[in-house]
Amino acid sequence: MSSDAADAIMDGTHSALRSRGYADLTMRDIADEAGVSKAALHYHFDGKHDLLLSFLDRLLERFEARLDGVTGANPEERLLSLAETVTLPPAGGDPREFRTALLEIEAQAPYDEAYRARLERFDEAFADRVRSVLAAGVADGTFDEGVDPDEASSFVVTYVKGARTRNVAVGASLDDSLAAFRRYVRSTLSADPSEGVAAE
Amino acid sequence: MSSDAADAIMDGTHSALRSRGYADLTMRDIADEAGVSKAALHYHFDGKHDLLLSFLDRLLERFEARLDGVTGANPEERLLSLAETVTLPPAGGDPREFRTALLEIEAQAPYDEAYRARLERFDEAFADRVRSVLAAGVADGTFDEGVDPDEASSFVVTYVKGARTRNVAVGASLDDSLAAFRRYVRSTLSADPSEGVAAE
Repeated sequence: MSSDAADAIMDGTHSALRSRGYADLTMRDIADEAGVSKAALHYHFDGKHDLLLSFLDRLLERFEARLDGVTGANPEERLLSLAETVTLPPAGGDPREFRTALLEIEAQAPYDEAYRARLERFDEAFADRVRSVLAAGVADGTFDEGVDPDEASSFVVTYVKGARTRNVAVGASLDDSLAAFRRYVRSTLSADPSEGVAAE
Repeated sequence: MSSDAADAIMDGTHSALRSRGYADLTMRDIADEAGVSKAALHYHFDGKHDLLLSFLDRLLERFEARLDGVTGANPEERLLSLAETVTLPPAGGDPREFRTALLEIEAQAPYDEAYRARLERFDEAFADRVRSVLAAGVADGTFDEGVDPDEASSFVVTYVKGARTRNVAVGASLDDSLAAFRRYVRSTLSADPSEGVAAE
């Protein structure tokens, strides 16, 4: 498959998940959104499940690239920027529809080992970056020496997952969730709370 | 409908959601699990959606009763107990199957105003109790005077939502999430971290 064709199919899958959700999604929907024939889609993929696994693999690559593009003057800024990157939508648009479809896929994970394996890689990709920046911050004195990077990274990943799920399920504001996260970082992780970069 | 019949139908709905999930659930499945005829079910409910709304209403009543049954020697103990009540399964069993079905329903919320309204009431029921116990703890000196009960309660609800979602989606341990939560309460909310009831 050409790179252009792969891009079109992956973009089409993204659009189709937004407009149709996961449960009702068909190969026809994806073909229509991608502007390719259904036969071409079936030539490359062994059905909807196979296509969605490829889609998740590609989404993971992009997710990791976004995480690795995060910058900041010090570990605290980088931590806040990582959390914003995962919490807020990539292009500033409304992520609700797409994230709702992802939540449907998460609800399949207990019964689908292949989905589960992909979702674990998303979780670990975020946790790894958070753990590294926490360790760097403990080492350079940005974060309190009592911070355990393993436990604190798990806490951060759990909180961000909650922010996204509450946004989909009950419309909780992502900006409010991030503001509360910034105060948590300053008051709990920072070595000197009064000098946090996010101080108001 | 008699109270016994209502109980049987609600218990049957719970079992059917566990075994079939939300998307594939049929009135037939619920009737079979409840030990009633499909005709009886249709006599009382205007289809699966109507029945599930009644089910969620009843689940909310039980959820609120469990929250109101939480005790503890002081506000910190009560806060930890509230978080445990919402994070751990009611009877000590594996909650994964039922929570997976609830996650499916959460993924419907953006497109279903009636589900959304119910889910908001669950969210608010938990947030209200957490807010009250935080305010009580600030007033009696258990929690730091700088703790804002509105913001901290939202933070707690978000974290617990994340713990449940990560448990379903990637199998993250509920016990580990709770242990990290206890340390957060002690280090961030307690007026005197060294005297926290959860100190190790």
